[in-house]
Amino acid sequence: MVTRSSPYQTPDASSSSGDERAHAAAHSPRIAIEAVQPSLEQGRFAAKAIAGQPVTVSAVIFADGHDVLAAAVNWCDDQGQHRREPMHLMRPLGKDLWEAAFTPTRVGRHTFVIEAWWDVFGTYRDELFKKHQAGVPVGLELEEGRRLLVAAAERMEGEAREALENIHERFQACDSDGERVGIMLDTRTAQWMHAADARPHLTRSNSVYPLEVERRGAQFASWYELFPRSETDDPNRHGTFGDVHKRLPMIRDMGFDVLYFPPIHPVGRAHRKGRNNTLQAGPDDPGSPYAIGSQEGGHEAIHPELGTREDFRALVQAAAEHGLEIALDFAIQCSPDHPWLQEHPGWFSWRPDGSIRYAENPPKKYQDIVNVDFYAEDAVPSLWLALRDVVQGWVDEGVKIFRVDNPHTKPLPFWEWLIADIRGRDPGVLFLAEAFTRPAMMKRLGKIGFNMSYTYFTWRNTKAELTDYLTELNESPMRECYRPNFFVNTPDINPYFLQSSGRPGFLIRAALATMGSGLWGMYSGFELCEGEPVPGKEEYLDSEKYQIKPRDYTAPGNISYEIAQLNRIRRENPALQTHLGVAFYPAYNERLLYFGKRTDDLGNFILVMINLDPFEAQEGAFELPLWEFALPDDAALHVEDLMSGHRWTWQGKWQSMRLEPWHLPFAIWRIHPVR
Amino acid sequence: MVTRSSPYQTPDASSSSGDERAHAAAHSPRIAIEAVQPSLEQGRFAAKAIAGQPVTVSAVIFADGHDVLAAAVNWCDDQGQHRREPMHLMRPLGKDLWEAAFTPTRVGRHTFVIEAWWDVFGTYRDELFKKHQAGVPVGLELEEGRRLLVAAAERMEGEAREALENIHERFQACDSDGERVGIMLDTRTAQWMHAADARPHLTRSNSVYPLEVERRGAQFASWYELFPRSETDDPNRHGTFGDVHKRLPMIRDMGFDVLYFPPIHPVGRAHRKGRNNTLQAGPDDPGSPYAIGSQEGGHEAIHPELGTREDFRALVQAAAEHGLEIALDFAIQCSPDHPWLQEHPGWFSWRPDGSIRYAENPPKKYQDIVNVDFYAEDAVPSLWLALRDVVQGWVDEGVKIFRVDNPHTKPLPFWEWLIADIRGRDPGVLFLAEAFTRPAMMKRLGKIGFNMSYTYFTWRNTKAELTDYLTELNESPMRECYRPNFFVNTPDINPYFLQSSGRPGFLIRAALATMGSGLWGMYSGFELCEGEPVPGKEEYLDSEKYQIKPRDYTAPGNISYEIAQLNRIRRENPALQTHLGVAFYPAYNERLLYFGKRTDDLGNFILVMINLDPFEAQEGAFELPLWEFALPDDAALHVEDLMSGHRWTWQGKWQSMRLEPWHLPFAIWRIHPVR
Repeated sequence: MVTRSSPYQTPDASSSSGDERAHAAAHSPRIAIEAVQPSLEQGRFAAKAIAGQPVTVSAVIFADGHDVLAAAVNWCDDQGQHRREPMHLMRPLGKDLWEAAFTPTRVGRHTFVIEAWWDVFGTYRDELFKKHQAGVPVGLELEEGRRLLVAAAERMEGEAREALENIHERFQACDSDGERVGIMLDTRTAQWMHAADARPHLTRSNSVYPLEVERRGAQFASWYELFPRSETDDPNRHGTFGDVHKRLPMIRDMGFDVLYFPPIHPVGRAHRKGRNNTLQAGPDDPGSPYAIGSQEGGHEAIHPELGTREDFRALVQAAAEHGLEIALDFAIQCSPDHPWLQEHPGWFSWRPDGSIRYAENPPKKYQDIVNVDFYAEDAVPSLWLALRDVVQGWVDEGVKIFRVDNPHTKPLPFWEWLIADIRGRDPGVLFLAEAFTRPAMMKRLGKIGFNMSYTYFTWRNTKAELTDYLTELNESPMRECYRPNFFVNTPDINPYFLQSSGRPGFLIRAALATMGSGLWGMYSGFELCEGEPVPGKEEYLDSEKYQIKPRDYTAPGNISYEIAQLNRIRRENPALQTHLGVAFYPAYNERLLYFGKRTDDLGNFILVMINLDPFEAQEGAFELPLWEFALPDDAALHVEDLMSGHRWTWQGKWQSMRLEPWHLPFAIWRIHPVR
Repeated sequence: MVTRSSPYQTPDASSSSGDERAHAAAHSPRIAIEAVQPSLEQGRFAAKAIAGQPVTVSAVIFADGHDVLAAAVNWCDDQGQHRREPMHLMRPLGKDLWEAAFTPTRVGRHTFVIEAWWDVFGTYRDELFKKHQAGVPVGLELEEGRRLLVAAAERMEGEAREALENIHERFQACDSDGERVGIMLDTRTAQWMHAADARPHLTRSNSVYPLEVERRGAQFASWYELFPRSETDDPNRHGTFGDVHKRLPMIRDMGFDVLYFPPIHPVGRAHRKGRNNTLQAGPDDPGSPYAIGSQEGGHEAIHPELGTREDFRALVQAAAEHGLEIALDFAIQCSPDHPWLQEHPGWFSWRPDGSIRYAENPPKKYQDIVNVDFYAEDAVPSLWLALRDVVQGWVDEGVKIFRVDNPHTKPLPFWEWLIADIRGRDPGVLFLAEAFTRPAMMKRLGKIGFNMSYTYFTWRNTKAELTDYLTELNESPMRECYRPNFFVNTPDINPYFLQSSGRPGFLIRAALATMGSGLWGMYSGFELCEGEPVPGKEEYLDSEKYQIKPRDYTAPGNISYEIAQLNRIRRENPALQTHLGVAFYPAYNERLLYFGKRTDDLGNFILVMINLDPFEAQEGAFELPLWEFALPDDAALHVEDLMSGHRWTWQGKWQSMRLEPWHLPFAIWRIHPVR
């Protein structure tokens, strides 16, 4: 990090020490570099990027006077390899905005710094050109240019020096000022002078900006969540890893990439929850898998009824063969039976009566689990290291994605350290924050390293809500720190909207999630349009968290085909592989959400229209965004309906559409201009 | 500055060193402190404040979990005196926004830092209260509270210890849990526990934030500019400082505070400009005062025809007796006759033919002046110190305000150092940046220390332009770094609007400037509605920059009375003594600009309506902002017309107004609710 210095001194400043401070000021940066992007809190945290995708770095760069500046971004990959990319002054010029783009190819921690300097020869060329154009005599300017040439040659060696000396010789041999001007304005002269640039007044940005480059799965993936123990046809028979094998083809056929399991560790007995979160478990109740730890082991162990470590390895392998990655749940909490309570009592906070407070995430109460105390005297750093070793152990088993349970109730420095530690060894490991809390914390978890996050998506239903939320996610600082994983449901969230919407509602939410973000997820049962709630609550009746729940995934009315279509469309269209690049366009019906997703070069341009009303057909006029292609209002676009495959041509900006929820409550069109 | 540490390590991180890093992470800040205001670039530059006016410090503060936090701002004045002000969590609570206000009374460099910590007893009290209210047994909680009491007493000595021990004794003597709860929830218990707080997990903001506290004149002052040499009744007789004496009562009667002179130094002879910026001066042409320096001296000297140093001192003294401060021009440029060219040739950049390039500020050319080269080899630091000594010399003569000519063409580090150096000795000295350049530079000059700045006001004429500009000045980062001085004209700017608007136009611009900003200025002749241009240009014909220009300031049609009224109204109404606190309200006519200026407590509430059309009467409906006082739409307001003194009551939100430019094109109303 470049150190900052301020010439300001407290009022005892005396002129005797004024000399030194004036000297220091004269050697401090002359050029201002402001508003560097992408950045978070002036380089305190890393902005996010994806390997293989261009990063555009921008800054406001200016200095005193009217001379020409030059700037470059100097970026460094995780191996310490430095590269320099020239920056360009963008229009409108009055904004002093400079930009450069580069494409990192490796994953891991990168950095960049911005450099700016006085472009002496550029300034000279500009002035010479203007005066020459204006017919002003330039004899004096030519002599100044000659001196610049000589000084540049003296700074160089080898080929560059020879080239500059050669230019100088040709300059000296000229017969007229016109010829001499020609040599000075020649682009080859500019190139050699640029190579020989002494970069006077070189100024570097105040910070070295970190950039966390992540693999593509941090921005584009479709998640499927299931409870392995429910992979059975008999509620009294505990499903196993072996049973999960049979589901792999079906999940892959729906187009998913990630298969995520709630905790697979031994389930505690003490205070075990019964069906529907009751406080008394029956003898056959399996308990919540979030009550981690029993005499069979803790977070490093596998619940015996699911299978052995070998079974788990075989499943990871089989999933990979189906193009599926296994994601595990990292839930830092203990059943009262967890071995740590005996082995490490100093990792917990004990009450005067020898008990430990059970966990709460208001308004939810978890009587079957207790939390560790990260700052208990014996916990630092042994608990921290033990937790790290748990994660590393699963990484060593080939698990590269972790869904982290309630990270906002554990210390921020813990996560910042743990994620950096794990990713420092293997930057392919990804962490999903299961945080549902206030906005500042949601953002902060992204800043400190979580690669993606659960979101407020589940509670955004109206056109205004969805527009505002997607827009916010596309803007700074969210776009630099926060990648949203749009889960349509979770074992903990049975959204009110879906409790009464019927099948059309599930199609609406699936379309919103798959089209809205590169990352989306569903918890099994969604494809069967399951939605029966605990009355009045946003929870599932007979929740799978407390009981084994076999399902017939081929039951009539399922939406597996539509989900497969949506995931196929995502794979085929880069514009849909990120939440970025969204733009909302006019559709004159408050129930019709209408937006575009497009790649920067407009090469892939998708229009999405969704009827937010699961009960009634909605229709209305809407505008084709012809202006995005700089086309007039009467121009035509080729259209392909990506659900049906139909193609046609739309002529003119104003069109009309009707979407019937009982048929299909959304439409997805790929457009391109008629050439 | 608190040092930053990041737990992130490059990929060679091995678990052997993991221990140390985990340990460091566990001891790094647990609480997040973000979005600290007022601040500029995370503390790199000082935000501005005014002595005697409250500073509201805010930050987003949060941490893991659901426990209660506490926060304070620890601020330090220029003498190193620290004070602590508790911060309060603002509603809505979900935003995690904390605020505190304090009022600095001294001028000079202050700092503040934000501190946040775990409020253990606050958390305890909250929980005890909730459980007690819910009728849950709290025996265990009471024992936990008792232990907190004992631990707190052990941390303290003297009175506090005694008080806590006393509380503990009373607690022990209680007969019932109900009584014990009463003691624990007692506010006196909370007070003593607060005093004994160990402040666990104390976290400080990443930066110590500088705050430049300035005197009131940096935010509220009315400037009058004149050329002393024009204070004569004969264009062939050079006016003197003595002549200026006679004008002082008239200027003060118009309500001005600052009397600003263009350079008063010896004027060069070489390449002297003639009338109307011609390149050949006649023998009696006085030349531009910006061509500084002759054999009579340079920036430290006084032009002999203006008077002696004693005359200048007498004028400073007389002005002070009239309530006027003298402001001088600091224009770092030299006539070719300036002594520095002979004495310090190494401060200039010489061309191959032995000449120096003349100054330009495109499109303007200054053939009569040359610039120093701040980075010439002999210039560092001797030129910098010499320029500082020039300013200090005038400060020593009692001049505490400098209008700095074209600061954006001199190095930023020079200004940052010079202003800090001068203000480090005398924080009452103020610098006004005469910068008309791109937005980033305008802001930056404020960040590096200029107390106020010229603006784009002169070129903002329509309702939309004025609304946008005043709004931008009220928002971050402008409000922290930039105080606008709304000059209605300058010797260099004869605004197009005024060239054809007639007298009403001058009243319109005077009302806009005086009501829009706490700082405004006019250049003499404005009160006489002078506006004859060099045809097609924004310049004055027969510009006073190149000739002596006597005026009859009592000529018919002058607007001195109206200016005096406007300045009086400003003095009497605190809401008008700053550009901050503006709000635009609906007036249904695009020519009627309508806004409010109000103090934070709404105790002083001014409504301003200005007809922007100098030719036609404009009328329209407008809304009284009853909602600002939380009043219903049919409520009444007392109104006083501050120009005429008339008073009445307005009933209801919708009112109508007509403003006739030939009478008075604006209205200023002070309102307050009917009680």
